[in-house]
Amino acid sequence: MPERITLYTAKICPYAQRAEIALEEAKAEYTKYQIDLQNKPAWYAPKVNPASKVPALAYGGPPVPPDEPSPASVKLAESLILVEFVADLYPAARLLPADPVQRARARFFVDAVSTKLTPAWNSYLRTGTADARDAFVAAVDAIQGLLPERGFAIGDFSIADIAVAPFLARAYVALGNDIGAYEPGEGARVLDTLQQPRFARFQQYWADLQARPSFQATFDKEYVTEALKKRLGSLRAKQ
Amino acid sequence: MPERITLYTAKICPYAQRAEIALEEAKAEYTKYQIDLQNKPAWYAPKVNPASKVPALAYGGPPVPPDEPSPASVKLAESLILVEFVADLYPAARLLPADPVQRARARFFVDAVSTKLTPAWNSYLRTGTADARDAFVAAVDAIQGLLPERGFAIGDFSIADIAVAPFLARAYVALGNDIGAYEPGEGARVLDTLQQPRFARFQQYWADLQARPSFQATFDKEYVTEALKKRLGSLRAKQ
Ligand SMILES: [Ca+2]
Repeated sequence: MPERITLYTAKICPYAQRAEIALEEAKAEYTKYQIDLQNKPAWYAPKVNPASKVPALAYGGPPVPPDEPSPASVKLAESLILVEFVADLYPAARLLPADPVQRARARFFVDAVSTKLTPAWNSYLRTGTADARDAFVAAVDAIQGLLPERGFAIGDFSIADIAVAPFLARAYVALGNDIGAYEPGEGARVLDTLQQPRFARFQQYWADLQARPSFQATFDKEYVTEALKKRLGSLRAKQ
Repeated sequence: MPERITLYTAKICPYAQRAEIALEEAKAEYTKYQIDLQNKPAWYAPKVNPASKVPALAYGGPPVPPDEPSPASVKLAESLILVEFVADLYPAARLLPADPVQRARARFFVDAVSTKLTPAWNSYLRTGTADARDAFVAAVDAIQGLLPERGFAIGDFSIADIAVAPFLARAYVALGNDIGAYEPGEGARVLDTLQQPRFARFQQYWADLQARPSFQATFDKEYVTEALKKRLGSLRAKQ
């Protein structure tokens, strides 16, 4: 029986959403506490996460308010580590396949998200160059290349899908609202590119991810849209 | 019962040694095949690892010579994924602790090695600047800070120790032979720094790692010394 869980999170943060999706999939009982990333509480780094990032998780210890964390709880951080932790705590949720080969494939997909898709997206968002745009589209293509003919990335919904969904969600919001350092109007053109028939398998996958209840329960599109506008709206001006 | 395993490896490569240590710890039966990284066989990328790196592992399939890999075997890559794969295949080897919190801590240690220690070492090796040197020493200190009072990183010998040992081994060979872009003679001075009392816990840990039979069975110090001299001897000249 898992112990008490408090998740420190932020709606805007794709890393934090990974941990939230895992906990939702596990049907875990947990307390969610929003950290304002622009104005972090003074107790957060010393008492929860020295790296001062979300997500972080307090596990066990006495019942305390989330903003008065107990030194008696274990503090864990790093989104993918938290996802594997939830997978280990709640084996019935099957967040990892049972077969070692399929587990390795799931982790390989996660690695491709971390080393290919997210750096390419961040680079395009922040530089807006044609090269960065092409690299982002190529990264989406690489992710598509790892997908099976149908269904989720590796068998049932798994850590692979959890790793990628929050990043795609924020990329779609940014492109759909033309937020980024690229030329005005280019967001819609990139979305058009991703609608081409050569991306049909990717589009089906993205639709499947969006239909997942754990994704819907953890993604506040209106909030993320307003927050991205506010935080990244000046990117283009800075160019 | 695990299926047939062929590991594609290279003695010089710290990533490859991680996979070898894991297989040794598991007392796995496997075939080791050396890839010459300076002159890779033409079949390697298309038939084993499209990224053309070591380590890679062929799992299952018919009995074939390693240099004629069968399309019927599963091909896996990325050192940390292979280590987790071996941990999953051979649970009796206990490469990961059983407790989910300890598993998360082991993965957090691995993450610190990947994001702090190895980039700091590579930067110092290749630039030789005083800032990079100080950052490397600080990274060793950060790793030391994650260690318990005694013993291996997280309870019994685990993926945490497997992740770090091959990188420390190569750093010691390079520093001990003054190989790197830094000023001549500085390798010995950095080793002196790491011998100071404030690094006593780290030194004990490093001694424990070197005493581990799986480390000794997979580290050919003479070979690595000659190979590093040959491959990196020109780094200083390039400055
Ligand atoms: Ca596992």
